[in-house]
This record gives sequence, structure tokens and C-alpha cells, in this order.
Amino acid sequence: MSSRSTEETKGLTGRTVVYDEDGKPCRACNTLEDFRFVTGKVTTSKIAAAGKPAKTMPEESLIPGSRSYERTNPPDVNELGKSTWNFLHSMTAQYPKEPSPVQKTEMSNFLHLFSRVYPCNWCAKDFEKYLKENAPKVNSREELGRWMCEAHNSVNVKLRKEKFNCDFWEKRWREGWEE
Amino acid sequence: MSSRSTEETKGLTGRTVVYDEDGKPCRACNTLEDFRFVTGKVTTSKIAAAGKPAKTMPEESLIPGSRSYERTNPPDVNELGKSTWNFLHSMTAQYPKEPSPVQKTEMSNFLHLFSRVYPCNWCAKDFEKYLKENAPKVNSREELGRWMCEAHNSVNVKLRKEKFNCDFWEKRWREGWEE
Repeated sequence: MSSRSTEETKGLTGRTVVYDEDGKPCRACNTLEDFRFVTGKVTTSKIAAAGKPAKTMPEESLIPGSRSYERTNPPDVNELGKSTWNFLHSMTAQYPKEPSPVQKTEMSNFLHLFSRVYPCNWCAKDFEKYLKENAPKVNSREELGRWMCEAHNSVNVKLRKEKFNCDFWEKRWREGWEE
Repeated sequence: MSSRSTEETKGLTGRTVVYDEDGKPCRACNTLEDFRFVTGKVTTSKIAAAGKPAKTMPEESLIPGSRSYERTNPPDVNELGKSTWNFLHSMTAQYPKEPSPVQKTEMSNFLHLFSRVYPCNWCAKDFEKYLKENAPKVNSREELGRWMCEAHNSVNVKLRKEKFNCDFWEKRWREGWEE
């Protein structure tokens, strides 16, 4: 797993920048502003945007007694799916290159339990079936990242969406496209 | 857990509408269009929006060889957090009112393993510490939903954000605000 830098570099937001074991800043552990600042990719417009005050909202759109929480409805099946794939793919992107036996067992158990608690019941059943037919590959980051990409593609096929080219899984979920 | 309706009602999208055990349509299991259609809350503008063709994208913004996947960067710590809270709160909202002993054990184990695999390492450590000091309450949906709301508030306090009034947790994550 990744660890905090001993150098204690501060980002634009004033927070300490978090680095991975390979010495690169971690996307999942830093704000986009801090990540871009430390990789030298931040622009002045981004700095200006980061400093903008929060917008004020009409009181009738807020939850009673709150000054910032809007009356947002619960996510539907599509928003829930998108959010959860964000989490699952990021999880594989931060999985160790050489996981310990304990880390492998934890990941296998986690994926099994995930299929038991996922809030869309028919999606959970489909994922449970997929797990039975395609045991999770947990021996390395590369193996797990591809396995998850293929699991996602099995859902894309059911929804008649384009399949994602899994050769790009690590660029999409760990490295990014800015060069 | 919820189950598919035996009536096989079709929604606007042509998919079968999924109902909870209490006979109400499930938000986390249906698209927003289908949910609103079956609850009589859909508007014609929404129907028109649902039928819109997908926008076309300039080729240089797409992943090589793809016709629909943009070169999206991996989520930063804030987007990852928002996505994962969407999943976690929805999970508590679909947890049974009266869970079985197996369901209680699965949920406790899931939350422990979640703190081991969450992709932001310092967030994961904070959550692991919170779990040790505040054992998850898994005896009912109401208990678990409030526990998760309070866990989220402990993060809100650290980030100097407003605390969410947990009396509204079920409206925010299960019932919605449309009346």
C-alpha cells in the first residue's frame, strides 16, 4: 500500500501531498488541485477556481435547518452503478503490485461480501453469479485491474454498451491521460 | 432484501420495474425515468430528455479505437469520496429492516474489509480507527443508516464541513424529497 511522504510537501490546498510506494503522487489520496500542483500541471485559472467562494442556495431547496445540504434525491440504479465502479476500479488501481497472502485473502473476501451487500439486488445477484464463474484474480495489481475491467465489460454487454479496451485500464484508473 | 415484482410492470425504458419488500419501487434498482414513471412523477420534458441521442465527441478526446469512451482522468480524493459515500449510504438504505444473523455478520465483515481495501490509504486508516472506536450497528436498517450517517459526519468535522442532520438520513438515501 502507499504511504505518506516523509518530505511533507504541501499542496495548493495546504494539505500534505500523499505519495505512492513508487514515489509518484497518489491520485486517489490527493485533491486534483494538489495532484496537478505537485506534478507541475496546474494552471492559474485552476488556482482561481479553487479559491472561489461556495455558491449560495435558495432556502427552499435546502434540507430544513441546513445551510449547505440540498434536498438531493437518492441515486438511481445508473448513478449508483457509476459511483460504485469509480470506487471498485480505483480500488484495483491502488492494490499492491505484489500483495501479501493476507492482502490477497482480504481482497477475495471483500469481493464476495460486496456481492452480498450491493444495494441493487438484481445487480448484486448478477455479480455473485459472475464471481462464481470467474474467480477474482488477486495475485497482482495488473491481474486484479484487468479482472475488474472484464467484470465491468460483462455488464456493458448486458446493457448493450461499448466494451472498454482493457489494455487501457491502468491509464483510465491510475495514471491518467495528461502528458 | 427486495425482490422483483411478480406483476412485471414495464417502465419507460422498457425494463421491468423492481419493487422492494414493502411494495414500493426501489430507487437503487430502477432508472430515475422508470422510478418516476411508476410513481406518476415523470414529466413530458423528462420523457423527451430520455429519448435524446447520445452526443458525438471529437475523436481526439476519445480513448484510441473507442467510439464512446473519453480520456477521463482517474477520480481524485474528493470525487472518490463522494462516489463511495453514494454507495455506502445506498447500501444502508437497502439493508433489511430485520436482518438475519447471517446478514448481520456479512455486513460487519464487509465494513471491516472495506477499511482494508479503500483506495485512499489515509482515509482507510481513519475509517479503520473509527470502526474500532464505534462498532458498526447492524441490528436494523434504521440503526445501520444512522451509524453510517454519523461515520460520515466524523469525516465532515475533520474536513470542516457542516454536519448532516441524521434525522433525515432515510429521506436523503431511500425515500427522496418529491411529494
